[in-house]
Amino acid sequence: MVDLLTLNTDTLRHMQKHLFLKYEEFRQKRLKLNMSRGKPCPEQLDLSSGLFEGLDRNHLAEDGTDCRNYGGLGGLPEARRLFGELLEVQPEEIIIHGNSSLALMHDLIARALLFGVDGQHAPWGRHPVKFLCPSPGYDRHFAICQFFNIEMVTVPLLDDGPDMDFVEELVAKDETIKGIWCVPKHSNPTGITYSDQVVTRLARMKTQAPDFRIFWDNAYAWHDFTAAPVPLKNILTACKEANHPDRVYIFSSTSKITYAGAGLAMVASSRQNINRLTKQMAIQTIGPNKLNQLAHVRFFKTAHNVRLHMQKHAAFIRPKFDLVLNLLETELGTQKIATWSRPQGGYFISFNTMPGCAKKVVQMAADAGVELTKAGATFPYGIDPLDQNIRIAPTYPPLAELKTAMELFIVCVQLVSIEKILSEREGKTAELTVLPEDKAQIV
Amino acid sequence: MVDLLTLNTDTLRHMQKHLFLKYEEFRQKRLKLNMSRGKPCPEQLDLSSGLFEGLDRNHLAEDGTDCRNYGGLGGLPEARRLFGELLEVQPEEIIIHGNSSLALMHDLIARALLFGVDGQHAPWGRHPVKFLCPSPGYDRHFAICQFFNIEMVTVPLLDDGPDMDFVEELVAKDETIKGIWCVPKHSNPTGITYSDQVVTRLARMKTQAPDFRIFWDNAYAWHDFTAAPVPLKNILTACKEANHPDRVYIFSSTSKITYAGAGLAMVASSRQNINRLTKQMAIQTIGPNKLNQLAHVRFFKTAHNVRLHMQKHAAFIRPKFDLVLNLLETELGTQKIATWSRPQGGYFISFNTMPGCAKKVVQMAADAGVELTKAGATFPYGIDPLDQNIRIAPTYPPLAELKTAMELFIVCVQLVSIEKILSEREGKTAELTVLPEDKAQIV
Repeated sequence: MVDLLTLNTDTLRHMQKHLFLKYEEFRQKRLKLNMSRGKPCPEQLDLSSGLFEGLDRNHLAEDGTDCRNYGGLGGLPEARRLFGELLEVQPEEIIIHGNSSLALMHDLIARALLFGVDGQHAPWGRHPVKFLCPSPGYDRHFAICQFFNIEMVTVPLLDDGPDMDFVEELVAKDETIKGIWCVPKHSNPTGITYSDQVVTRLARMKTQAPDFRIFWDNAYAWHDFTAAPVPLKNILTACKEANHPDRVYIFSSTSKITYAGAGLAMVASSRQNINRLTKQMAIQTIGPNKLNQLAHVRFFKTAHNVRLHMQKHAAFIRPKFDLVLNLLETELGTQKIATWSRPQGGYFISFNTMPGCAKKVVQMAADAGVELTKAGATFPYGIDPLDQNIRIAPTYPPLAELKTAMELFIVCVQLVSIEKILSEREGKTAELTVLPEDKAQIV
Repeated sequence: MVDLLTLNTDTLRHMQKHLFLKYEEFRQKRLKLNMSRGKPCPEQLDLSSGLFEGLDRNHLAEDGTDCRNYGGLGGLPEARRLFGELLEVQPEEIIIHGNSSLALMHDLIARALLFGVDGQHAPWGRHPVKFLCPSPGYDRHFAICQFFNIEMVTVPLLDDGPDMDFVEELVAKDETIKGIWCVPKHSNPTGITYSDQVVTRLARMKTQAPDFRIFWDNAYAWHDFTAAPVPLKNILTACKEANHPDRVYIFSSTSKITYAGAGLAMVASSRQNINRLTKQMAIQTIGPNKLNQLAHVRFFKTAHNVRLHMQKHAAFIRPKFDLVLNLLETELGTQKIATWSRPQGGYFISFNTMPGCAKKVVQMAADAGVELTKAGATFPYGIDPLDQNIRIAPTYPPLAELKTAMELFIVCVQLVSIEKILSEREGKTAELTVLPEDKAQIV
């Protein structure tokens, strides 16, 4: 394989025909593979087998609370202690809730719109609100903003976090910017981890909005592949040190530790924020599912055991990432038609095609039975300005399926890229026609 | 015991001294009993022992869904079918969610304020909003209104439901009345069940607000003590027949069927409402805890089994209600200083003192170690206009404790009532001084 851009048109056309035949072979297989979401695979879920063992027989928390009954709004004390330790916050600085950290974020923003965030400043909903969205980022964060009519301002995500020069400039002058979305460790989808300097700058920066908030979605806090995980500076401590103790809400969950549909979600923040939130949540619910919290605490017992458990996850995930990265390197490494991330943890590989190709690649893959995350999903409003980012989620499929899916994906990338190169040479706007099935054989 | 109002002052004073001594005896016991909330007792919770049995080993839903993983927003199909049958709605007309029906109500109202309820009419939050609150009612409903600055309009709750003449008159003329809270079966706290006629009138009535909604909290749908439970007319069907198919949201949960802290919550409504809500919830969460849903469906299997299970609950609850009602009848039956409800199901007995006595009774009981629901809690803003309603929650304490608590309660009622009668005779405003502990013996 060589740099495709240096090949002459005839060679490219020859390759194109060859690739179409390969593509058609894939299509004949009538694949039905889904790589669209960052889901744990069944073997990962099996790691938590026994989670509910004995729960029916012994349902008392350490303080004697019957976890089957009502109450316990902030979460079981032992659960707050365990996950507080893991997130490096005090038990009083964390709430352990139901199964969805997304719901905690969504509900926090709904309340901010209706009531503001601190009892001092106006409800956000009174005026237009903007959020900074480091991108590529997590589509569900962006969906929350879109749902609540919060204007999203795209911020470039660099290798060490958001472009802080840009962020600082924006928040210093625009009072309507009330928040920023961050996935600070093994970021979704690029896999980067924020540098200490970025964390410090986020904590310290002057914001025109006095009620500015960082939504710190630390979803992959313990999800490392490597023996010496890259550390993440403690943002709550940094905010306290910067005299902005209430600036950050930290979210996490055990969705990718135990069960993705039946784990625990948590939010950590200053005591003041946690107290306010607890009072608000008392209106919403009598309490979370404490039995599930008890199950988790008994299953893990210590923070150390959680970390050991995550190494078992890594043993399943690492080979899948290796497979994808090796295939990409082998097939596309020298072709100069794409770049991709090489994460040290998390759930995604971020892949960039040549500009204007991502949608077509995703569509072609879908037509041949491999569903990828929608192109554009990693940007606000689902609009990738360069149409080049694709999120690859390798964790769910078995290795054999993953290999097939990636081989198809690579063929799609090559086909769409060659089409684009040829179109540009012909001075046309790049447009790829995926042939209808009955005509495909004549290519 | 006789009608206290007919006794002469000396006799009353004599009784008063005697009762104070009894009260002081209770106080010496340093009781610590809590009857403030409608909580199931441990024996009731034990009825669901085995709920999670085998869940770790077999976690597949009937359609092959791995319940440990993400997804399944509306709830497991088999859970929608089971609880749909119990609530007499179609599976497509119900969403099975997390553990808190209160959260479903709260979140629905938050969304209504921000977006409206039907995509056609303005967000409720744009203008002042009022809710009708049949009272005595459920304090947590009222707390939601107060939290969201929704003005509460008290409506008398009669023996067959809200005073419909009053309701119809109000909703016909006031566009800002957007909703009504209803606990239609074994109502909290009076225990009444809405008559067919009331259900029909609620479904049919003309409302000035085109986006008026009934919040139908059917929390005690299957919670009968008697062999032939009083039936409740199907409000969703009634609304459809009245050409107001989208008027009602029905809520329920298994909090008082399986585990109060770890059950399932549900909302049922027209398909249109359910579709809209499902789309909104897709922004909030990836899905509910499906493992818990699977556990419930496997534990019960059929609607019939749920009903049988509720008979076992009744076997624990009925003797407690009987104890309370018998004590009240024996001690207060002829004294004409109080009235109370005699429910056929649910969790509460509604008790009315003479006007102006409820707060003092609750305070005296608290001072002697028995915590009751806060007086006034059963009315909007916590203000009982006649200060006479007290909610008795007999389910949680063991029979012996319940007996002690009720004996104390009755002494408090008698003391406060005599004080009031005497004060009125003396032309004073009724005011009771509970003696400080060290002076009590000289009475």
